[in-house]
Amino acid sequence: MLIDNLKKYRIHLASKSPRRNELLRGMGFDFEVMPTNVPEIHPDDLAPAQVAEYLSQLKLSTIDFSRFPANTLFIACDTIVVLGDKILEKPRDKEDALRILQELSGKEHTVISGLTVMTATHKETRHQETKVKFRSLTDEEIEYYIVHYQPFDKAGAYGVQEWIGYVGIEYIDGSFYNVMGLPTQMLWQMLEKLP
Amino acid sequence: MLIDNLKKYRIHLASKSPRRNELLRGMGFDFEVMPTNVPEIHPDDLAPAQVAEYLSQLKLSTIDFSRFPANTLFIACDTIVVLGDKILEKPRDKEDALRILQELSGKEHTVISGLTVMTATHKETRHQETKVKFRSLTDEEIEYYIVHYQPFDKAGAYGVQEWIGYVGIEYIDGSFYNVMGLPTQMLWQMLEKLP
Repeated sequence: MLIDNLKKYRIHLASKSPRRNELLRGMGFDFEVMPTNVPEIHPDDLAPAQVAEYLSQLKLSTIDFSRFPANTLFIACDTIVVLGDKILEKPRDKEDALRILQELSGKEHTVISGLTVMTATHKETRHQETKVKFRSLTDEEIEYYIVHYQPFDKAGAYGVQEWIGYVGIEYIDGSFYNVMGLPTQMLWQMLEKLP
Repeated sequence: MLIDNLKKYRIHLASKSPRRNELLRGMGFDFEVMPTNVPEIHPDDLAPAQVAEYLSQLKLSTIDFSRFPANTLFIACDTIVVLGDKILEKPRDKEDALRILQELSGKEHTVISGLTVMTATHKETRHQETKVKFRSLTDEEIEYYIVHYQPFDKAGAYGVQEWIGYVGIEYIDGSFYNVMGLPTQMLWQMLEKLP
């Protein structure tokens, strides 16, 4: 069983996101949090799924394997929100969050996570997409959410596990945990390939 | 805004489920938990969606409105798990949970919640369906889950918000919170019809 096999690795999660931390913990693994600090800049000519994969690799690009024990395993993930073919960034401020959520209101968008699993001898990157549909949200509802939940660290200015996810999302199509920030089931399958 | 309008009601949630409690709390409402105790028996000739609706109504069938203030609002919900056209009950014991999860493994099933909102002068019942697909689960994985999470109070012998939901579900199609036990977004829409 995977949980037992992974005990031979020292797992590092390259993210300071409390959601990713909680989800990886819930998968039954012991790990340490080791966020890297690489500016999230990507080439302009990449399609959204490639951007998510690229950014997950970028987070591990400064790792010097010679400084870690040979059994070290790194996990990095980047989640983006895409409306049409436009990537929505994290909001700069309250007005920006309002504008983003007004854009998402009443429409289906796509959440894409890029996920990279890496040891000294093995590296794999994949991505997963989930469709999310918001009902039409009133400005009053959007403002209530921003004031009470301050979603400024979140791509697309919302957390699916928060109030707006409870009352505003009509359906999702795909992995829920992918929308929360870590495609847990895909990660499980990637980790099963490790020796 | 709905949260303000509902302040004129005294809300009772007719469920002792901690998940429903958490979800209704997360919607921003103040309420009391008041589980009713009616045996969950339904006529044999109902289709699954009708069963879920019937059972949500049944939970409120013993309410005597004359004993409550006129502004009392009751919410009841029943969630069932359906594979093909067969309703899967809550597991009786460990062996039964193992058998149910082996049946769900590798297949798509449907989760249906029936939801009833009732005041002295208003009553509405609706249902919501969500498709859920498990990947193929090994017996070792199923046993790990049952031992660590004891899913004996859960229809279909699993909680989507637990380990098996993280590592074993390939996709859902519909409302995630419906699978967790309360179709929050549909409830919001039903509550918006109240005077």
